[in-house]
Amino acid sequence: MNAILPKYSGLRELFSMIVVMERGATPDQIQHMVQRVESLGLKSHVIHGTERTVIAAIGEKRSETKEALASGPGVEDVVPILAPYKVASREVKKEPTQVVVGSLKVGAGAVGIIAGPCSVESEEQILKTAHAVKNAGATALRGGAFKPRTSPYSFQGMKEDGLKLLALAREQTGLAIVTEVMSTEDVELVARYADVLQVGARNMQNYRLLEAVGQARKPVLLKRGPSATMDELLLAAEYILNEGNPDVMLCERGIRTFEAHTRFTLPLASVPYLHHKTHLPIVVDPSHGTGHTYLVPDMAAASIAAGADGLILEVHPDPEQAMSDGYQSLNLPQFVETMAKCRAVAAALGRTI
Amino acid sequence: MNAILPKYSGLRELFSMIVVMERGATPDQIQHMVQRVESLGLKSHVIHGTERTVIAAIGEKRSETKEALASGPGVEDVVPILAPYKVASREVKKEPTQVVVGSLKVGAGAVGIIAGPCSVESEEQILKTAHAVKNAGATALRGGAFKPRTSPYSFQGMKEDGLKLLALAREQTGLAIVTEVMSTEDVELVARYADVLQVGARNMQNYRLLEAVGQARKPVLLKRGPSATMDELLLAAEYILNEGNPDVMLCERGIRTFEAHTRFTLPLASVPYLHHKTHLPIVVDPSHGTGHTYLVPDMAAASIAAGADGLILEVHPDPEQAMSDGYQSLNLPQFVETMAKCRAVAAALGRTI
Amino acid sequence: MNAILPKYSGLRELFSMIVVMERGATPDQIQHMVQRVESLGLKSHVIHGTERTVIAAIGEKRSETKEALASGPGVEDVVPILAPYKVASREVKKEPTQVVVGSLKVGAGAVGIIAGPCSVESEEQILKTAHAVKNAGATALRGGAFKPRTSPYSFQGMKEDGLKLLALAREQTGLAIVTEVMSTEDVELVARYADVLQVGARNMQNYRLLEAVGQARKPVLLKRGPSATMDELLLAAEYILNEGNPDVMLCERGIRTFEAHTRFTLPLASVPYLHHKTHLPIVVDPSHGTGHTYLVPDMAAASIAAGADGLILEVHPDPEQAMSDGYQSLNLPQFVETMAKCRAVAAALGRTI
Amino acid sequence: MNAILPKYSGLRELFSMIVVMERGATPDQIQHMVQRVESLGLKSHVIHGTERTVIAAIGEKRSETKEALASGPGVEDVVPILAPYKVASREVKKEPTQVVVGSLKVGAGAVGIIAGPCSVESEEQILKTAHAVKNAGATALRGGAFKPRTSPYSFQGMKEDGLKLLALAREQTGLAIVTEVMSTEDVELVARYADVLQVGARNMQNYRLLEAVGQARKPVLLKRGPSATMDELLLAAEYILNEGNPDVMLCERGIRTFEAHTRFTLPLASVPYLHHKTHLPIVVDPSHGTGHTYLVPDMAAASIAAGADGLILEVHPDPEQAMSDGYQSLNLPQFVETMAKCRAVAAALGRTI
Repeated sequence: MNAILPKYSGLRELFSMIVVMERGATPDQIQHMVQRVESLGLKSHVIHGTERTVIAAIGEKRSETKEALASGPGVEDVVPILAPYKVASREVKKEPTQVVVGSLKVGAGAVGIIAGPCSVESEEQILKTAHAVKNAGATALRGGAFKPRTSPYSFQGMKEDGLKLLALAREQTGLAIVTEVMSTEDVELVARYADVLQVGARNMQNYRLLEAVGQARKPVLLKRGPSATMDELLLAAEYILNEGNPDVMLCERGIRTFEAHTRFTLPLASVPYLHHKTHLPIVVDPSHGTGHTYLVPDMAAASIAAGADGLILEVHPDPEQAMSDGYQSLNLPQFVETMAKCRAVAAALGRTI
Repeated sequence: MNAILPKYSGLRELFSMIVVMERGATPDQIQHMVQRVESLGLKSHVIHGTERTVIAAIGEKRSETKEALASGPGVEDVVPILAPYKVASREVKKEPTQVVVGSLKVGAGAVGIIAGPCSVESEEQILKTAHAVKNAGATALRGGAFKPRTSPYSFQGMKEDGLKLLALAREQTGLAIVTEVMSTEDVELVARYADVLQVGARNMQNYRLLEAVGQARKPVLLKRGPSATMDELLLAAEYILNEGNPDVMLCERGIRTFEAHTRFTLPLASVPYLHHKTHLPIVVDPSHGTGHTYLVPDMAAASIAAGADGLILEVHPDPEQAMSDGYQSLNLPQFVETMAKCRAVAAALGRTI
Repeated sequence: MNAILPKYSGLRELFSMIVVMERGATPDQIQHMVQRVESLGLKSHVIHGTERTVIAAIGEKRSETKEALASGPGVEDVVPILAPYKVASREVKKEPTQVVVGSLKVGAGAVGIIAGPCSVESEEQILKTAHAVKNAGATALRGGAFKPRTSPYSFQGMKEDGLKLLALAREQTGLAIVTEVMSTEDVELVARYADVLQVGARNMQNYRLLEAVGQARKPVLLKRGPSATMDELLLAAEYILNEGNPDVMLCERGIRTFEAHTRFTLPLASVPYLHHKTHLPIVVDPSHGTGHTYLVPDMAAASIAAGADGLILEVHPDPEQAMSDGYQSLNLPQFVETMAKCRAVAAALGRTI
Repeated sequence: MNAILPKYSGLRELFSMIVVMERGATPDQIQHMVQRVESLGLKSHVIHGTERTVIAAIGEKRSETKEALASGPGVEDVVPILAPYKVASREVKKEPTQVVVGSLKVGAGAVGIIAGPCSVESEEQILKTAHAVKNAGATALRGGAFKPRTSPYSFQGMKEDGLKLLALAREQTGLAIVTEVMSTEDVELVARYADVLQVGARNMQNYRLLEAVGQARKPVLLKRGPSATMDELLLAAEYILNEGNPDVMLCERGIRTFEAHTRFTLPLASVPYLHHKTHLPIVVDPSHGTGHTYLVPDMAAASIAAGADGLILEVHPDPEQAMSDGYQSLNLPQFVETMAKCRAVAAALGRTI
């Protein structure tokens, strides 16, 4: 694990924005806005165009600046110029972050493969899966013990019994354990068994949970919410980083769009985009991202080609009998085939799985 | 408040689904799927079409049925026929639910108006707003004490001090208090001061929080997540209802789409749709739903015309100085004007605000 | 009809944009971009911030400016400040445009009601509908003669025979005729019979067709494409206006989002937004916007409350027998009831249908 | 080119659908719907569930069947079971279609690379690009002569002069020419010069144009509209196929979603999905699909890994001076590097570029 980060002082976030005045804005309105900008501790530059006036506001700001200016008199729009996140940014840390925990290494050239069932269901199921994915080349084991389910009537997971089975699987295989934590109350319990705390897509903006996993001394896999923008994802990471925890892996798992032939739409351009903006490693989840087993192998290979630092894949020894997500799980031979594809693509691009 | 609901038995959820076999599915595969359907305790009806075979599976099921069938051999698709929610459904309770708490009455013909600032900022601010919105016809006061913020560097709310100010405002004006609870740990504290517990859009699928507010004996305002489907919203309500709490108000506050000229897209057809599907009352939030003050009055009136049982509106005595969301807040004269519009539309349609 | 517009000179489009340099941009890169800005005939203002430099580019520009600057060395982003449309803009023409043709008056306080079947199917069907909607208060008759259909195997319309029946219906009822034109080849033919040429959502960016209807001397109803932004809609209108045709009505008919419980998502905030940006009148289509008959009456009333200058509604004497779109058509009693609702809301807000 | 297809008889489209009756549907309503189903020439199977009745309707149908049934009395929903396209379907033709024209071969194992500028701008520009992309391994040249532009004030292309320059480039390099046709009037002209007729995303549902290119004896590259579903894309292809033209290449070029950090969202799962559903080859456009040069190489490689049969890439010798789309164009060294990546990935997966 990387060293603990110092707490970032939000008061010094640097920012610029452009206040666009309406076409008929009066000199008084412009003067008023200049004073507002300066009262926020920013420098103002007034630019008189042929048709309208814009005020550039530059300096160190609190995050409310945009909101504070947008409702001023005669203001048409406020356009922010810089990204609102800081610690996650490439501008602050140029070299890529590598997260290493037990058998799992993700980022900075290392490609980690996290595989396992949606839910831990029984000792036999999880051990059989763990050995099989280990043999096929996985470097970590996933498995849900606490399950967030859309319906209150669905199977909610084996809870602590599931965590114990995951720990047993680690003992037998040496695989690092990745499992979801759904609530601040459970962080301590889950952290006792897991190597990586997963924050699920539904909880990406559960800020209390982000703070809690930020305080835990365990790496975090942060899944993108299905309607989260890149800025929102990076600001969610910032909540964790800002508690001193540097070991954050971002996970693209698909967004909600009008497409109905897949469970979600998997927008792989996130991978090179995020590599451009942040030093944090990027993992892709083609199982949730497509929702259909037959689409997973090709999209796993495509994720690697797009530059992913890791994959998280649902694998089940008998998907037809799975208690959740069977329709998007690979069986063991399919996982072996997927690994072969991914390994070939990674090698072709000079990386190793 | 309505009477406590008995816990619903998930084991008896009734459902039907259609298993569509692939075109070349073999008799063995069809036979296998028939057995699978029956092993799940469902009745099967095989229909041989000119080109392919479908199996209708009907009966009482566990929610995993679809998933259990979708990965079978030769299966092309599984199409569910009935909605997955139950207690929230019109089929279970025909007459509309009315939520009544203090000054606030929502549903079954009553239109409630919840107004106030995004954040509680000071005693002066909240009292001034409370008196003003009361005089203009609001029937409840909103105000955030715990604020979920996209950035960790933004103002996070006054917390318990804010709750105390809200209670003071209730004392002076008689207005019921609506305020957000962000975490299970805070439910007891917030419930001590508030009349209605608001679950924010980012927490719509924070199932632990839903269970916790379900156990609290307070009405809940449940906001739709920006990428939630109607089924997901109703299943989130079902988590609360299923804990015995019958006083759930659904809130449409806009969804995330490609539109960038508004903060969110406010899809008002949710209102008549939900009235068709559920007995729960529907509140609309045109402030978050549009994100621009100048769009709020027309969209408030449109919400009433669409059949909304209530509105929740951001109102601030001086939006330019607001610590959050000033750009979408009405000032006091704008709120008075909005109320006039809404009252006229409600009257025209035979309802009263 | 309004007077013919003079052709707008694209060369004098006024614009500003902000070129945001990367954090480590060199003085040479900045100097290079200043020269690029000036070589495009714009004035440049360089602003050196604490962390990065931005260049404001202001003046009269060709539309390629943004593209020309965005690929420069050291450039992180180019942020346009002004809207790209011109003739459609409120800045150019403050007073609202009213389109008047025969019995139909839309905009500037007048609310037009365009009603009729999806497709013209027979003399009996169209005459019966025309008389009924006229009696209930419609001010124009819609009906498709050329039908754009998703599948080549669907009914494609009665073509010229349909146009003749529409003309007959106008003769009998005095209602203005609104009908779709799908192709430049048909503009002359359709214009011979119709009072308003409708450009369908699928053709909103069929620029040849826009130019052709711009040259026809008939008012145009321009439907928003299901993934069109407001700027794209207004630029499509600009294609028509720029050919000299001032009589353009914009039509909001729903956008494509992840919502599946409605056929499209009807974002009524478009109505006040467009009223703010353009002088052109706004018509709403709640039939396509929802796709379900039972949602149409409430959403029609909501459209009026949001400020719509007109409605276009699918009405069929026997929706169950309709050759297209029966599931979203009002029958005659439902249309009467919808009109009553809309009339009440309009009256409450000081407008008349 | 493949052999001309016989015209498909729409009257024999095979289909099944499930009519779901409302919970309280009466025996009369059920009986009525059974008669409706049979009057449409379908066989009906009534299934009485514990809570509601569904009617399976199976047989050969006209496409209006769903619409005809959905507005019946007591009907809650109609669920179609089979896809609405036919000739494009894998069920009709199992082996993949390969399109071969001059130097370009796409599909059935062959990967075609179509590269060139957004717009043809000058003889020097197009010849320089053509030679360079040829040398780097491209198998066809793209270049717009007729340009669909969002704004009427943007550069609209060199028209026939551009086509002549493309023909000259073919003469010098032997590369097949791919260029867009925007209007039925231009089909003959463009077909005189081009090897492949491109139908742009904005025209994907311009049915007259689809019919016209279906009648032209040239292969067609059909781009997906930014809000088109897979069914809509395949039905658009069906318009072309149904005119007898078998040489259709589908092109995924990104969809419109809430994501704003890319121009469009490029959903690569379309590639394996379409390979599963249709025999037609799939080309990907990472230039429009991302809108940023720096994202193109990784997404090009990812497209190949996902199984694409071809790429279409914007390449310009001097993107900063391009008259359109410079910000998403590769320069010549970037194209060489992209080709190397793609070739390596293709080889790793047993295909050749």
